[in-house]
Amino acid sequence: PMATTQDEAGRRKFLDFPFVSAPHKNLMLDLVSTLENRFDSQLLPCTLPPDVQHYQSQSGTAQASLQIRSGQSNSPVDFVLGSWVHSELPTGGSLDITSLSAYLNLSNDSPNFLIELIRSSPTMLVLILDLPPRKDLVLWPDDLKTFYEDTHLDKPRQDLEKIPEVQPYYSSSLYVRTVSSPTAIMVRIETPEEERMEDIIRNHLDPISKQVLGVWLDHCACAKRDVGEAERAHLKKRDGLIRGKTIEIDLGSSFPRLFGTEVANRVLDTMREYFTV
Amino acid sequence: PMATTQDEAGRRKFLDFPFVSAPHKNLMLDLVSTLENRFDSQLLPCTLPPDVQHYQSQSGTAQASLQIRSGQSNSPVDFVLGSWVHSELPTGGSLDITSLSAYLNLSNDSPNFLIELIRSSPTMLVLILDLPPRKDLVLWPDDLKTFYEDTHLDKPRQDLEKIPEVQPYYSSSLYVRTVSSPTAIMVRIETPEEERMEDIIRNHLDPISKQVLGVWLDHCACAKRDVGEAERAHLKKRDGLIRGKTIEIDLGSSFPRLFGTEVANRVLDTMREYFTV
Repeated sequence: PMATTQDEAGRRKFLDFPFVSAPHKNLMLDLVSTLENRFDSQLLPCTLPPDVQHYQSQSGTAQASLQIRSGQSNSPVDFVLGSWVHSELPTGGSLDITSLSAYLNLSNDSPNFLIELIRSSPTMLVLILDLPPRKDLVLWPDDLKTFYEDTHLDKPRQDLEKIPEVQPYYSSSLYVRTVSSPTAIMVRIETPEEERMEDIIRNHLDPISKQVLGVWLDHCACAKRDVGEAERAHLKKRDGLIRGKTIEIDLGSSFPRLFGTEVANRVLDTMREYFTV
Repeated sequence: PMATTQDEAGRRKFLDFPFVSAPHKNLMLDLVSTLENRFDSQLLPCTLPPDVQHYQSQSGTAQASLQIRSGQSNSPVDFVLGSWVHSELPTGGSLDITSLSAYLNLSNDSPNFLIELIRSSPTMLVLILDLPPRKDLVLWPDDLKTFYEDTHLDKPRQDLEKIPEVQPYYSSSLYVRTVSSPTAIMVRIETPEEERMEDIIRNHLDPISKQVLGVWLDHCACAKRDVGEAERAHLKKRDGLIRGKTIEIDLGSSFPRLFGTEVANRVLDTMREYFTV
């Protein structure tokens, strides 16, 4: 499919990240361009309906941008999803979520990539940064070694842990914890002032997120993997379950609250087409 | 098999917990008796060789007690393992590890039980308390609900997290993290004085560990589970892998260091017989 002028407007709106700070925006833009540069022509333009590329609540207090680019048939990438959500809070502040995730298809059984920054105030941020495994690592210890041990993926987590403002974050959803990897970064950062939060984003979250994306690009997405028929069927089942739950738990619970049932259903129904394995 | 006088001596030595504080000993004794009372006559006496029930390093600076009781054929319990390890440290202090674990057999696909207290000084303790799942919870969300959500297993973890001296503990082994459940309690506790540590053990670790064991007894070990042939084969494979890795990683690395190769091999070879599925 060809990108239309409307699609280009949707993409510009996404890349604008109009509601987050400069270090936060730079972090996201660097990740998006690193990912897109690596896959270059393998990614099709985003062709979501305009009212799914950008949507808002009836009152206009919440708005969001969504971009999904599917991989060409010769690519290991199934699709790349980028998004931001901005919502004014009754308390006067705002909630800002930015996320980037990349899902591989069944030709490659490597982990996916996921980053999500949830900023609920200028001095409070939750970071989820992970390469969620697509196989049961208990049954596949070689994959644990290849993707997580040999790549030293626990190092960035340990580095982040040393910063005094960084505390572990436990998702209230046990399913979200279950699908995460043993080196998942799930932290809550609370700073006395906004300035310090921007420092932490610039000096720590930015390099660490690039490092994790680098591991994903070099050792996962671009790995030559031999996926047999039986494994492929198993992967399809597991991917399908995880993606279904992602829509249901992660998005299905917060989207209707933020955007109203009608808008949420429109967006989720469209997303579901991509999330089907 | 009948218990001999030597076996009774081995059991007494285990239950003596001679090197740990009164609150620590009470915690362990309560768990052992709660577990044994529930299964009562279903557990056979420990018939390990005397030099595996109690063993020490050549220099005598490290000694340990081990008890394994197999379940009768009518029991869902495969075996219950209790142990303490005491090792004098070159720095003058001592390392004391006490543990209790219960492994179910293939007639029941519920999680196992595991508690381990690692005290490396009077003011430093690591607690691992978990019901490690025996199935890939991503593929079995109903099990996640039954064993972890409906039983509110995250509550004791949250309660413990609120104590200021309690910090999360990350095992250096990614495999150990991988086999743990989404509600696993893995914490490091550091207190200014020994007295405060004993308070925390008495007032927090004691009730919390009983609560988790209670969930395991009521909702896992005594659950009526219908395990089909295919599931049973899968369970056997996964149990086998985890048990093998437990010997290899968890014990295989520290035992030779503490007790020397000869003693370590003697103990591990005997344990391996029980750990085979």
